[in-house]
Amino acid sequence: MRFVTFEKSDRTVRSGIMLDSDLVVDMSEATNGKLPEKMIDFLEQSEQNMIAAVQLLRLTDGNKGVYPLHEVRLIAPLPTPKSFRDFYAFEQHVKSARENRGLDMIPEWYQIPVFYFSNHLAIKGPEDNITKPIECNCLDYELEVACIIGKEGRNIKADEADDYIFGYCILNDWSARDLQRQEMKVGLGPAKGKDFSTSIGPWIITKDELENVRLGKGFDITMKAKVNDVLLSEGNMKDIYYSFGEMIERASAGVTLYPGEMIGSGTVGTGCILELGTEVHRWLQPGDMVEFEIDKLGVLKNSIVND
Amino acid sequence: MRFVTFEKSDRTVRSGIMLDSDLVVDMSEATNGKLPEKMIDFLEQSEQNMIAAVQLLRLTDGNKGVYPLHEVRLIAPLPTPKSFRDFYAFEQHVKSARENRGLDMIPEWYQIPVFYFSNHLAIKGPEDNITKPIECNCLDYELEVACIIGKEGRNIKADEADDYIFGYCILNDWSARDLQRQEMKVGLGPAKGKDFSTSIGPWIITKDELENVRLGKGFDITMKAKVNDVLLSEGNMKDIYYSFGEMIERASAGVTLYPGEMIGSGTVGTGCILELGTEVHRWLQPGDMVEFEIDKLGVLKNSIVND
Repeated sequence: MRFVTFEKSDRTVRSGIMLDSDLVVDMSEATNGKLPEKMIDFLEQSEQNMIAAVQLLRLTDGNKGVYPLHEVRLIAPLPTPKSFRDFYAFEQHVKSARENRGLDMIPEWYQIPVFYFSNHLAIKGPEDNITKPIECNCLDYELEVACIIGKEGRNIKADEADDYIFGYCILNDWSARDLQRQEMKVGLGPAKGKDFSTSIGPWIITKDELENVRLGKGFDITMKAKVNDVLLSEGNMKDIYYSFGEMIERASAGVTLYPGEMIGSGTVGTGCILELGTEVHRWLQPGDMVEFEIDKLGVLKNSIVND
Repeated sequence: MRFVTFEKSDRTVRSGIMLDSDLVVDMSEATNGKLPEKMIDFLEQSEQNMIAAVQLLRLTDGNKGVYPLHEVRLIAPLPTPKSFRDFYAFEQHVKSARENRGLDMIPEWYQIPVFYFSNHLAIKGPEDNITKPIECNCLDYELEVACIIGKEGRNIKADEADDYIFGYCILNDWSARDLQRQEMKVGLGPAKGKDFSTSIGPWIITKDELENVRLGKGFDITMKAKVNDVLLSEGNMKDIYYSFGEMIERASAGVTLYPGEMIGSGTVGTGCILELGTEVHRWLQPGDMVEFEIDKLGVLKNSIVND
């Protein structure tokens, strides 16, 4: 099942389900309020709400709450996650990014999946523009998969973590490399280098839909990034070194995870300009259009604009 | 004015105002619901709510919604801030902590106030125990002041930032130094070293109450930390290198700040065991009681327990 959030022509914002590639259903309207209006509230009780959502798709009586996709505007499928942790789980990305700076691989990277918290209040959607920070001259994209938590838990073991996952979506962890470089010299972060925008979408796909492509520590799904229609990045999520289960084990050690928290995978190998090198592509500029495509997760496009 | 959040004997949680050292008023009950039940909702409309709160204190008719402090249990004055950024704004702390590791001061520290995002979903209050993470053998406290945002803004200049501040409280940024050291070798964070608990309280004092002690870039208020009644840390908030205005300018550059976000000052000089050295005091252990006292901000006590 693919969950979206959209703005209707009357400007109300609702969450719902994609019926096919052209139709969405407002799950609250179609169930007379039995299902909530907002995705975050759906996730709070995701197990029982999923039962009602499955029923809704079976029994949907005609067109109640059904809208053609071209009549609504898709926004981020979870406009305000409860939090956003971003991991660093693809080996090739870490290796290449360090090699470019003349640095060896870090032994500790192989011991623990590490993450940082980022700004969960700056989430953008599939049709939003991304504002280049005024002081940034090295704007980059980062091609990632996000995992959405659907159940509360603490000290979750990796092999039980699937129970706590609701689904997945594409994530672009926009990065101001110059701001990031400066702040990280002081030994904290990244924070200001990443706080201005993170885009997700177009939909959250439920975990069951990826079962048949499970491979390695991840899924056999191709991940591509294009800038202005030129293919720059191409990887596969199956190459991830730490599974989302292992990331959840790490995040939840001694800490309660709540429904609606979001976890980023980190950048897939080749998945950003920092790693490719500016001889392959210059840093992003206003006017550029960045398009991510991941099998089953859809297409996420955003254009860059000036502040 | 001092805002608190408390659990009543019937287990309902309400926010309110300290009337004197022994009494609190449930602001929603006392105003027949005109003021909200939760601090986060109060902050959403803090300007108009403050007018009603001032009226409440003037006109309070008898004892409606008034409770003796010993009949309620104080919890964190803002149990779930919208986010938590922690800065690094006291020079002595940064210098000493680096000296202890044989490192020089970082020139970039003097150019920009840096911060990281931490876990705003793990906030503890003045009477909560702090659980030592199982894998942590180097548990530390960090003596800080927090600033609570009361108004939405973006690209806020330091000299206008006071308009966006609601008030201040004590903050203990509990730190697992061993976990922090390990993860920061990989070049991200701190995250796991700090995500298990941050305690704040006992109250949020409104900014007007500190006007008469404004000094330097901060306020002339003494900051003390005791472990098991032994004074270990003593500093003054006036020694801060970056003002909260400068931190807000940094945080809001290209980013919208919302009411209810929380900003930590970073640790005052001498304000943690890492800086004092373990020859002064061993790392914290279950059974220890850590007490922070800051002029006007009150006393925040927490005991350490095992997981």
